[in-house]
Amino acid sequence: MHKELKDYLPFWDGLTAADKAALAGAADEREFPAGTVLHRGAEDCVGLMIVTKGRLRVYTLSDEGRELTLYRLLERDICLFSASCIMNSIQFDVLVSAEEDTAVLHLPAETYKAVMQRSAAAANYTSELMAARFSEVMWLMDQVMNKRLDERLAAFLLEEAELRGAKSLAITHEQIANHMGTQREVITRMLRHFQQEGLVVLSRGRVELANEAGLQALAAEARR
Amino acid sequence: MHKELKDYLPFWDGLTAADKAALAGAADEREFPAGTVLHRGAEDCVGLMIVTKGRLRVYTLSDEGRELTLYRLLERDICLFSASCIMNSIQFDVLVSAEEDTAVLHLPAETYKAVMQRSAAAANYTSELMAARFSEVMWLMDQVMNKRLDERLAAFLLEEAELRGAKSLAITHEQIANHMGTQREVITRMLRHFQQEGLVVLSRGRVELANEAGLQALAAEARR
Repeated sequence: MHKELKDYLPFWDGLTAADKAALAGAADEREFPAGTVLHRGAEDCVGLMIVTKGRLRVYTLSDEGRELTLYRLLERDICLFSASCIMNSIQFDVLVSAEEDTAVLHLPAETYKAVMQRSAAAANYTSELMAARFSEVMWLMDQVMNKRLDERLAAFLLEEAELRGAKSLAITHEQIANHMGTQREVITRMLRHFQQEGLVVLSRGRVELANEAGLQALAAEARR
Repeated sequence: MHKELKDYLPFWDGLTAADKAALAGAADEREFPAGTVLHRGAEDCVGLMIVTKGRLRVYTLSDEGRELTLYRLLERDICLFSASCIMNSIQFDVLVSAEEDTAVLHLPAETYKAVMQRSAAAANYTSELMAARFSEVMWLMDQVMNKRLDERLAAFLLEEAELRGAKSLAITHEQIANHMGTQREVITRMLRHFQQEGLVVLSRGRVELANEAGLQALAAEARR
């Protein structure tokens, strides 16, 4: 496993031979079919996951059962919060699910934590990882507080089309609401408005992007 | 400065003598009168601030000029984001202002960064600090997405009364709106409703908590 880990972990060369051996010895490959929820809050501290194929979605769940997508992890991204027990101060719960058939390199939390406590290189890399996720959440907070729903929805549809490499998205209004942290009815109303404006064409379980330039103009407001 | 730093930095004993000397030699005491904005986004990377007296407010500013309070830093808390340049991945801007006359121990960003890169103890402590702030922002995100404004406002007024040790708050509707990331008109409307319910008494530039138990019952919903 040395070769793969060296490829995925930028701090590899800064580790001692013993720490390299500890990580390589503990790592294993795991596969999750699309739809699997692979992490549910702090109580299951599965370990670090390096995405080698597919896509993970990291999201929160409110007391009322409403979801909000925080960010997605693509190939080569590292899922830190599935190992939230490596830090005492992570006092929040996220869920992680596979959006596509996904393969990961898995590192057990306790092994990673031990290496991090000995190695400044590993510890600083972990800080950078957390700062990157923090930045995504701060961007989202700005969106939620300060952007209009139509702008956020346009940005979401375009991002989704890019991720999937398709202009016709097999997605329900419920699923969109779960990404955006709002209610299905709110999304249905806005999508119908988009359809009237010629921006999308709706059919059962499907949203087709009909006017990408128009959506981009709207989304540009959200990105400002 | 050795003695103070040893007292405030839990990782002090894990540092080499050279790193202790570097930090102690670079640290200085600074004072900020109430109202001072001591950090404005990423471009001014002032350094780490350990609060020794007073209170700092960390907040964001939208393109439209709307503020949102992320959290407060009290005595012994460390302000990390005033040294955001110590990590490349911190891609967001916050502002920091003194809410009271505040004194800090200041550590220059470059000195702290150099120590952090050599010391796993310092790097791991910095990770924990960031995880603690991340947790506060995640709590706020849940509030903003999932709690009603009346519940949030009740929780805010109670927190404010506790911080100030007073039931009569010298605070404008504008200032409350800036904490909560909303518009003044929205706060004025809700405060008038609170007054009708006998929860508060309003006068010019002042909100008095008239029924703490009632506010607590409302706020309990937001804390759930």
